[in-house]
Formats: sequence, C-alpha cells, structure tokens
Amino acid sequence: MLTRSLKQVLKSGIKDALRPVLQRYPTPQEPFDPSRWGLAQRPGAGLELHGVDLSALMREWGSPLHVVDAARLRANARRFLAVPRGASAGAEVYYSYKSNPIPGVLTFLHERGVGAEVISEYELWLARHLGVPAERVVYNGPAKSDHSLREAIDSSILLLNFNHSEEIDRVAGIARALGRRVRVGVRVSTGRGWSAQFGVPIEGGAALAAYTRALSCEAFDVVGLHAHRGGMIHDANELDGFVGDVLAFSDSLRASLGVELALLDLGGSLGTPTVEHISTADRRLSQAFYREISVPPAEQRLQIESYVERLVTRVEEHCRERQRARPRILLEPGRAMTGDAQFLLTSVIETKRADGKTYAIIDAGINLAESARNEYHQLLPISRHGAPRAETYTVVGPICTPGDTLYPAVRLPELRPGDTLAIMDAGAYFVPFSTSFSFPRPAVVMVDDDGQVRPLRRAERHEDLIALDEPARPSPKLRRAGS
Amino acid sequence: MLTRSLKQVLKSGIKDALRPVLQRYPTPQEPFDPSRWGLAQRPGAGLELHGVDLSALMREWGSPLHVVDAARLRANARRFLAVPRGASAGAEVYYSYKSNPIPGVLTFLHERGVGAEVISEYELWLARHLGVPAERVVYNGPAKSDHSLREAIDSSILLLNFNHSEEIDRVAGIARALGRRVRVGVRVSTGRGWSAQFGVPIEGGAALAAYTRALSCEAFDVVGLHAHRGGMIHDANELDGFVGDVLAFSDSLRASLGVELALLDLGGSLGTPTVEHISTADRRLSQAFYREISVPPAEQRLQIESYVERLVTRVEEHCRERQRARPRILLEPGRAMTGDAQFLLTSVIETKRADGKTYAIIDAGINLAESARNEYHQLLPISRHGAPRAETYTVVGPICTPGDTLYPAVRLPELRPGDTLAIMDAGAYFVPFSTSFSFPRPAVVMVDDDGQVRPLRRAERHEDLIALDEPARPSPKLRRAGS
Repeated sequence: MLTRSLKQVLKSGIKDALRPVLQRYPTPQEPFDPSRWGLAQRPGAGLELHGVDLSALMREWGSPLHVVDAARLRANARRFLAVPRGASAGAEVYYSYKSNPIPGVLTFLHERGVGAEVISEYELWLARHLGVPAERVVYNGPAKSDHSLREAIDSSILLLNFNHSEEIDRVAGIARALGRRVRVGVRVSTGRGWSAQFGVPIEGGAALAAYTRALSCEAFDVVGLHAHRGGMIHDANELDGFVGDVLAFSDSLRASLGVELALLDLGGSLGTPTVEHISTADRRLSQAFYREISVPPAEQRLQIESYVERLVTRVEEHCRERQRARPRILLEPGRAMTGDAQFLLTSVIETKRADGKTYAIIDAGINLAESARNEYHQLLPISRHGAPRAETYTVVGPICTPGDTLYPAVRLPELRPGDTLAIMDAGAYFVPFSTSFSFPRPAVVMVDDDGQVRPLRRAERHEDLIALDEPARPSPKLRRAGS
Repeated sequence: MLTRSLKQVLKSGIKDALRPVLQRYPTPQEPFDPSRWGLAQRPGAGLELHGVDLSALMREWGSPLHVVDAARLRANARRFLAVPRGASAGAEVYYSYKSNPIPGVLTFLHERGVGAEVISEYELWLARHLGVPAERVVYNGPAKSDHSLREAIDSSILLLNFNHSEEIDRVAGIARALGRRVRVGVRVSTGRGWSAQFGVPIEGGAALAAYTRALSCEAFDVVGLHAHRGGMIHDANELDGFVGDVLAFSDSLRASLGVELALLDLGGSLGTPTVEHISTADRRLSQAFYREISVPPAEQRLQIESYVERLVTRVEEHCRERQRARPRILLEPGRAMTGDAQFLLTSVIETKRADGKTYAIIDAGINLAESARNEYHQLLPISRHGAPRAETYTVVGPICTPGDTLYPAVRLPELRPGDTLAIMDAGAYFVPFSTSFSFPRPAVVMVDDDGQVRPLRRAERHEDLIALDEPARPSPKLRRAGS
C-alpha cells in the first residue's frame, strides 16, 4: 500500500513537472480556420453558416443537432462526378449507404447523379424505397441474405459483387430458381499477408479461381471487378499502388480466362482531409500531459479532384496502351463525399474543476460522436468564436462512464453553461454508429447557401425509444407500492 | 519495396513457425459448461433453455435474437435483496437503467422490489412511465437537464446525487423556484490521482467543501453519500478497501459538519463472474497466433451473496462500534444483476477460408455486440453442441469493416450456414450500445422456467429506421432517370 502510494506520488510528480513542457513543445499547430467549412463570424455574435446563426438554429431545433451543409454536399458530388481534363469520361459514383444513411442526404445525392452502394438487405430496401433505379445500385458486403439476393436479382441491379467464393453457389442457385441472369463481379483483396476478412485474395490464385467458378455458372454475366484499398488513401502513391495492383489483376483475368471487364469498381478509402486517425503516441501525450492532439496535414492529402483525375487517367492509359475499350469506372465514396459536409452542434451543460483539470461536460458523447475518440475532429467554439483560447479543457460527454471522454485536452475560449460547440466533419460514421444510450438521438437539419433550413429527421422523443416494446402496463404490484 | 516484402515474409514465417506452439501452450482452459447458464442439451438436437429449443426459438422470432432468462433474473434480484445472516436489514437495490433499458426487464425487476437508478431525463421519464414510485428513484449522472431536475424535485424522488459541486447552485435555484425541498447527496470520488471525471474528490477537501455548500442551501435535506468504486470489484479486498474509504469519509463528514447520513449509496461495480476485460497481451496473442482468449477465473470472483453480506456487515459493524443508527444502504447494480440473465442468439451466414484462416460470418457484429471485442463473452455453439470442437474460427460480423471481428480465434465444432450460436452474458451494455448500422436491431424475448416465451420488444422493421425522417418523396428527377 505504502509502495503503491509512493509510486503514485512519484509518477504524479514527474507528470506535473513534465506537463508544462510537453504540453506546449513542440508547439501544437493552430487548428483549422472555421472558414474552411464555410463558417463565418456573425458580427457581435458566434459563427454562422450561410447567414444562419448556429446557436439560434440549435435553440430552434434542439441540442444536440446534426447540421448538413447542402452547398458543400453539392460541391463534393460535383467534384466526384467531374470529367477529368483529357479523359473520355469521368467515374460513376455510388455512395456508400452505410456511411450516412439519412434519407434526406441520400436523396440529395441521388438527385445529383450519384447511385447507391449497399451492403445489407435494409440498405437495398432503402435505395429502392427512395426511388433509386435498379441499374444505379451496387450490392456488396459479407452478409447478403437470401431474401435480399432474390430482390437484387429480380430487379436486375447494376452489379452484385461476391465478397467471398462461398457466396457464388448460393447466388447461382437463387438466380437459377428465379430464371434470371445477374451481373456479377468478385471483390478481390490486393493486400498481402494476414488480413483477408473481405474479398478474395489475388495472391495464391484464390481470386482467379473464384472467377473461374463464376464463369462456369450460366446465370451469371461476369462483368465486374471490385476492390477497396482497405486502409485510407492519403496520397497519390498509395492510390497509384492500389490501382496498379487492380489493373495488373485485370490483365491476368483477361489473359487466363478471357474476361472482358465492363465495370471496374475501385471502391472507396479516400478520406476527409481534416480528419485523421489519432496515433497512440498522440493520445497518450494528450491524456497524460494535457497536450492537444496534432492537427492533420490537410494540405498534403489527396483531394477529390486529383483522386478522380489520377485514377481515371491511369485506367484510360492502361487500356489505351493495350488497345482495349475502357471499362466503366465505379467509385464508392463514403467519408470523402459526406464527411466534411455535416457537423454536430452540442451544448455545454456545465464546466467543473477537479484535480487540477477543467472539464467541460457537453450533451454529445460517445453515444453520438464515438469517432471523435479515435480520429481528429476539430471542436469549434461556435458561440465564443474569436475570444482568446485561454483555457485547456477535458471535454466529456453526458454518459456515466470514464470512456466518455471525447477530447482529453483542447484549448478553447472560456466556456459557460449553454455555450454552443461544433464537432466538425460528422458526416460519415457518426449517424450510423450513434446509439440511444440514456439520451434520445438528435434531429438532422440541412442548411442551403440561400440560408434555407430544411428538417431531414426529427429528434427522438422519449416514447420513440420504447415504441417497439410490449405496452408498459404499470404492474398492480407497483401501483400498490406507489405513493 | 523489396525490403518491405522481405520483412513481411520473415514476419509471416516466424508467425507460422510459432503459431502451433503458442496456439496450444500453455493449454487454454476449457470454456464454461452451458449448464452454468441453465442450458441443457436437447436429446438429438442443440441446446435448450427451460425446455425451449433455442434454434427453433430463433426461427420463430428471427435472427439475431436477445433471450432473457426470467428464472436467472428472478434469482439475481433475490440474491441482491436477501438479508445477510446476522444483519438487521439487507441492502436496497436500485437497478442501473443505463445497463439494460428494456421496459420488460425493468418492470420484471421492479415487481420484485428493485428500484430505479437513472442518469438522464429520458431514464427518469421511463421510470415514472413504468410506474416506479418516486421514492424508489435515485437520480445520478453528470448531465441532468433543468427540465428533469424540476420533474425530480416536484415528484420528490428518494435521492438526487450531485456529480460535481457546480451542480449544487443550479439545483438549489430550481428547488427554490418550485418552493420544494429535495433529498440530496454528493457523489464522492475515493480514488487518488488523475481520474476525476465523476464525483467530487475526497482528497484535498473538495468533497467536504461540497457538503458544506449543500448544507448552506435551505431547500436541501442533505441525507445521502454516494460513491462508486469505478473499476470493477473482483474480490473481497477490493470491496473492503472501497467501503472502508467511504466509511472513513462518512466519519469526517459527521465530525466536521455534523451530517447524519440516512442513505449510504454504495453504487455498483460488481461484475459478472464469467465476463472479464480482455488484456492487451491476450488480444495480441489471439490475433497474431490464433490463440483463444483466456477463460476468466469465475470461481475466484466475488458472488452477489458474498458481496452484499460483506458490505452490509461491514457498515453495520462500523455503526455499532460508533453507537450510531445504521443508514439505509443503497446499491446500484447493473452488470451483476442482468449481465448473465440474457444472451444473444445469432446465425452463421457463411463460413469462408482465406489466407490459412477459417472465418465464420455471423449476423451479429459490433452493431449489437461491441462489448465482445473487449470482454470475454463465451460463444456457445447452440445447434452443434456436443460435437468435437475441431475447428478454430475467426468470427466476424456482417458489417463491412475490419473492426467487425468479434472473436479473433475460437474453437468450435465445424459450422455450417444456418447454425445457431449464442453470445453469452449479453444482459448489460449490449442493448444500450447497439446501433442500427446497416442492419435493423433484433427482438427481445423472455423465457421463464415453465418454458413460457414472452415477447418483450419486437425486431426493428425497415420502415422503423426512417420513421423520424421527412417522408421520402421519390424525386421527379430520379423517376425520370429510372427504368
């Protein structure tokens, strides 16, 4: 006991001594300017988007609140769909439904020429429910139910990609039973080594064997090749390596099996430049020494335009050199399309001081913003913008667990209860990973560049959280015990 | 590139050589017998609970499926509420709503004499909606809304515990405005060192200062003292240390401020014996060498009866020695009450072989069973029980992300698509942390010891997932483009 105390005192003393040093050297970079997200200071007040006062918006629609920037979303869709200079055509874009399955967001993208990439029976249903034509739907994923396969085949979707060879016979059986043909591809894995959770490895010949098997099924039109890089694509080198691997495999596919690819599906994996996985070192420094998380090198990251241009050009050159027709190029962006077009407004419930730290308790925690624990997502002081960032806060959510720490250390202006903050880049993997843990989930609104605000989804009410439960009949026993 | 390949080949070679050794030595313990959870083999078939064939149950109610064992839940409630031998009274039990907020489970507990511990406006509403009398409600948590405070004070709940000193003035203001008195306590933190996210630290005098402040507010009846150990209570020593710290503080509270505690709230922190946090070493060994996660030492863990007996006896002795009245003892169990009284049935969608591994893809992943990644939760082969555990599987969920690996390596009988598995001890933090990520959430049924099956919550339907969205009007643009 004495030893443990002594160790703790020593550890704590060393930390206290090192803290002022490690907290500030090397000097942490300045956070991004709010103008990067189109936010501007309202004279005499906080930040606004397209002339809409964000604190007022939250008072109207409730806190927390997801805000989708229609202008940014429109721009991102345009950037993905633009035909690169010198190319014969651009890429086709199929938005990864799982990244942000809000019907208002999906419909907005569909109206601008974006198709649907779905990975479950529910997502396939949703795409069709939203009016997406079958030839604008790609169906992927490791867990396709028989029912959903019948739907997909019967409606004749654009492309069904096998996640693993074992799917091939099952799909063939269903297609035969329906008397329908189906356009298929195989998701291949270009990675070497261990990880083969998704896709069929090229190395060792498994991918080629899967194509051989697929070609032997009469019900299939084997037209597609599907791959994801897996890890994020940060720069041109990573993109080139990935596309090169896929093109090399397409060559052997042609040479060995005579497959003419009509659809080359190069998946997603492009990130949001202002978001980055937090390294273990950064996290530890932040927790132990109250140092801010490093700002990602956004300017060095591959932008949407360069990504599409480089990829399309590379495929076209490859085909030109071999005097082949260029396949249709399919992309399945998630993060890169919607990530930076949405943010989560949240309120300060209270600030507290304890053990030499200052805590800000906010009303959005791991229930809504789990990603902010593992990734850099800038925290913007909306109502206090412009005031000096004089205080370092540990920002925690409303949930009673030590895991509900979103920002171990972040410099912000001095906060008061009721202040508005924004967790930026909340447009991918925030909504689908959100839970109703102790607190109902928030509303989603869309703000357009003319200042129009459109509700997309209302906030959960208390009753919604038990809507699927058997009616609560207050028990006679409880009533007897009641006051 | 060559160097990288060479390094990978070497690494992979070393792993391949070490794998057969590290996979089996030291011999991993045998998993728990299904009888521990009251499961028995059905002659010529899989496992059953109280005579109910679990595979058939899943066919009837859908897969995945949460199954609550009413008999186990009843027994756990009884064990918590039993008056220990020699004690003048037992503990009062307030179930931690956040652990498993299914109305059918909560009502079942309330009918058996268990009260409600709530940490949010929603949970306070739910307790009242379910007919829990106000004097059976304890309100905790770092994020109490003004509205919920008015409700709590107006209905005169048993106890409102301050999470931090900064709450005191706000609550006092609301009580004054309502012209009502409120029974309050302070959540104190007994831990030394850094973590002070919850509660007011005893060390340094902050807790005493908070009581001084609370005593100065006329609207308060300062009757309570609240503490959680924080980390899990595994054994008697950990419990004794914690209770001792709290009792020592109660003495100084009496000595310095004359506070007579009527309610001693000793929180939760007791675990489920068959569940344990997975160590980093264990996780790494499992991922790299395909070795099973260690089975927790369940028999060495403090059981509910011993926990209650030890804690009540300790408090009674402390008071007797000082010739004081014994306060009412409040407990707030979550995991220990419901954890082992529920399991999650799931189906095998497909098995696949890749890179020398065998994968089982199941229809419950991190969307429903996130906890199984960080904690030992035994995976039982329901439909194949009794067959030799001949194969080591990597068990993955249905979601398209490498993070959706629930079991890096687990020995099971040979599986086929459609087989039923059960993730055990799913009665705490599974339901509240579950998401609708790409797949609707499952139904919850309760099975009693007479074999009666009662639905508690129906499965989400596709329409439910967009019920709060603005009606989807398939856009004319989309229709024009449609086929």
